Amino acid sequence: MIAWSQHAASRTSRLRPSAIREILKLTQRGEVISFAGGLPAPDLFPVAAIREASERILSKRGAVSLQYSTTEGDPELRAWVASRYAGVRPEGVQIVSGSQQGLDLVGKCYLDPGDVVAVAAPTYPGALRAFEAYEVRFRAVEIDEDGMVPESLAEALESGVKLIYVIPDFDNPTGATLSLPRRHAIVDLARAHGVPILEDSPYSDLRFEGDPLPYLVDLAPDVVIHAGTFSKTMVPGFRLAWLAATPEALAPVTRAKQAADLHTSTFTQMLALEVARGGSLDGQIAKVCEHYGSRRDIMLAALDRELAGVSGFRWTRPHGGMFIWVSGPDEFDTTSTAHAAIEAGVAYVPGEAFYADRRRTDGLRLSYSVASPEQIEVGIARLAAIFRAA
Amino acid sequence: MIAWSQHAASRTSRLRPSAIREILKLTQRGEVISFAGGLPAPDLFPVAAIREASERILSKRGAVSLQYSTTEGDPELRAWVASRYAGVRPEGVQIVSGSQQGLDLVGKCYLDPGDVVAVAAPTYPGALRAFEAYEVRFRAVEIDEDGMVPESLAEALESGVKLIYVIPDFDNPTGATLSLPRRHAIVDLARAHGVPILEDSPYSDLRFEGDPLPYLVDLAPDVVIHAGTFSKTMVPGFRLAWLAATPEALAPVTRAKQAADLHTSTFTQMLALEVARGGSLDGQIAKVCEHYGSRRDIMLAALDRELAGVSGFRWTRPHGGMFIWVSGPDEFDTTSTAHAAIEAGVAYVPGEAFYADRRRTDGLRLSYSVASPEQIEVGIARLAAIFRAA
Repeated sequence: MIAWSQHAASRTSRLRPSAIREILKLTQRGEVISFAGGLPAPDLFPVAAIREASERILSKRGAVSLQYSTTEGDPELRAWVASRYAGVRPEGVQIVSGSQQGLDLVGKCYLDPGDVVAVAAPTYPGALRAFEAYEVRFRAVEIDEDGMVPESLAEALESGVKLIYVIPDFDNPTGATLSLPRRHAIVDLARAHGVPILEDSPYSDLRFEGDPLPYLVDLAPDVVIHAGTFSKTMVPGFRLAWLAATPEALAPVTRAKQAADLHTSTFTQMLALEVARGGSLDGQIAKVCEHYGSRRDIMLAALDRELAGVSGFRWTRPHGGMFIWVSGPDEFDTTSTAHAAIEAGVAYVPGEAFYADRRRTDGLRLSYSVASPEQIEVGIARLAAIFRAA
Repeated sequence: MIAWSQHAASRTSRLRPSAIREILKLTQRGEVISFAGGLPAPDLFPVAAIREASERILSKRGAVSLQYSTTEGDPELRAWVASRYAGVRPEGVQIVSGSQQGLDLVGKCYLDPGDVVAVAAPTYPGALRAFEAYEVRFRAVEIDEDGMVPESLAEALESGVKLIYVIPDFDNPTGATLSLPRRHAIVDLARAHGVPILEDSPYSDLRFEGDPLPYLVDLAPDVVIHAGTFSKTMVPGFRLAWLAATPEALAPVTRAKQAADLHTSTFTQMLALEVARGGSLDGQIAKVCEHYGSRRDIMLAALDRELAGVSGFRWTRPHGGMFIWVSGPDEFDTTSTAHAAIEAGVAYVPGEAFYADRRRTDGLRLSYSVASPEQIEVGIARLAAIFRAA
């Protein structure tokens, strides 16, 4: 008989279950309107295009598509990915099994125990979890509606940082987009301090308004490892994403990937490439943007109407992506109101999960990607009632 | 400008590229007969069944099959996996992205830097790579035609071991199968010392002769984490496998999996379950066994004919799986003859790669899974000529 928990490696004490997944389990009970998940809307999945692609691949290249393949990824898919960037060559693309694996492998290759990662406060909890497995510490950097604040990052860098983690577009959870001057300022800081940036960019294609801004990796391929994905533009169920950087930056990542899972599914790589090349991906992205954009408008209008009168509350106005961040008064505790909200039939993610130190509780994340217009109206009204009562 | 190699984490110095993959690259040049790869024969893939499964899933459950899903894996697939074992419950199954990820996650959860892993010498290099990323040391255990030698394992355990890694059936690279008395002896040793066993079982279903022996996890679910896979029985391109153990043993593994890649592809899980349930998997396995069994016979006959006269050479006679292990005289160097062999148009994997300390060079691995009968005859004759000359 093994006492498994006593036998476990020291790093496992850092592996916390996801607070979001716990909330999501609760929302599956009964008639809860969920603004909690970060799920793409399944009605928009390009099922017909995938069905055709699957039929074509299995009828013409069945054996190849189901065999082992290279650790780096399908050469044609790597070339397709590289063509989406100004500063990336196909040899600088590593296919991974979802962006989360990209974050994990960068952590595995570039973070020793005790190293410091600079992250926005709040930031994506999946990134915190990926890096925590390597027994690192976090340094919180301020973030506002123009994204990560360079002055705050500069301070962090002075105290010693090994990696900077940035979500440039339609941030999870704040919805913020890093302004162009700040993009330049942040890569300049990274260069000056010799500290690499991990640019996590799952939402960048989902822009409803304004002009696209250059990726950090295109501004500064010498200091940036970029993570992109099909999860939000095509489907998440393939678990298909990529890292894009210089071949030098990715050399250890490819070796780590080989040790971690040999390679990403040959079949889903070929499926995604076939769908992307079929020309339907841009139309698909336009459809997703229109859908999410209209839901964002409805949610912002509902917040303006229902929550404007509740003292101390404010919220972000994202130009794309899936998330709005709501802040209450400083002493407000969104963790304790979350349970009351679920009892009232509405779910959100309490802000606590987005802070490395879990100290701030005044924020919460709302997702507008899967709720219907009516659910958004009803759900925001219910939330406002709870916040007024609290 | 970042000096990436200087910036890398200490563990990356352990991440060596795969010697086998380097050999495989060479075999793609020209007319090389390859006994080097561990690839399943692609002509045997159940492409028609997968095509039908894909069509059924995408037409009826398209949205669900392409959405995010749970970290543990598809509940129905977990139940199907559990039903293949005597001592495993569905809650004790964690779906992973290929067995390699299973090895990596067990390493991540149960190995601290400096810990010792007991491995057969020789053993599967992918396991060495997975564990090396966690900065462990290896303790070599003897292996013969009846598998890992319990007396040698007992000695290793006396000196302090954190994990025992065992391939019970048709070992990679030796082809050995662990005898029933040794299975009992090894789980008894693990229990007595309170050291868990990782049972890596990718080939167990590919038995050509003799009766199946019980899995270690069925003999001792209290001390064993078992890894099984669809890669050798269905297709490797899905990257779909599982760990089976007690829920306590897998609790940290599930959290580590969440941090590593959220979950395994929803779509490939549903595809594999549909094919497995369609009833064609047992027929598929029988077809693979018949094919590999006849190839093994041809290769053994060729070795008996061509190599019997070459002094000091001997080879194993596997009862299943994909590999024969050839040993030369003690001073023989299969690494240096590998290049001559490739020039003569035949490839194998030099034995060096299968030893944690890379000290022994007298062995080599032959795979009979993909070569044609004629290629086997010609290739073994070429090899014998080279060994005679060396």
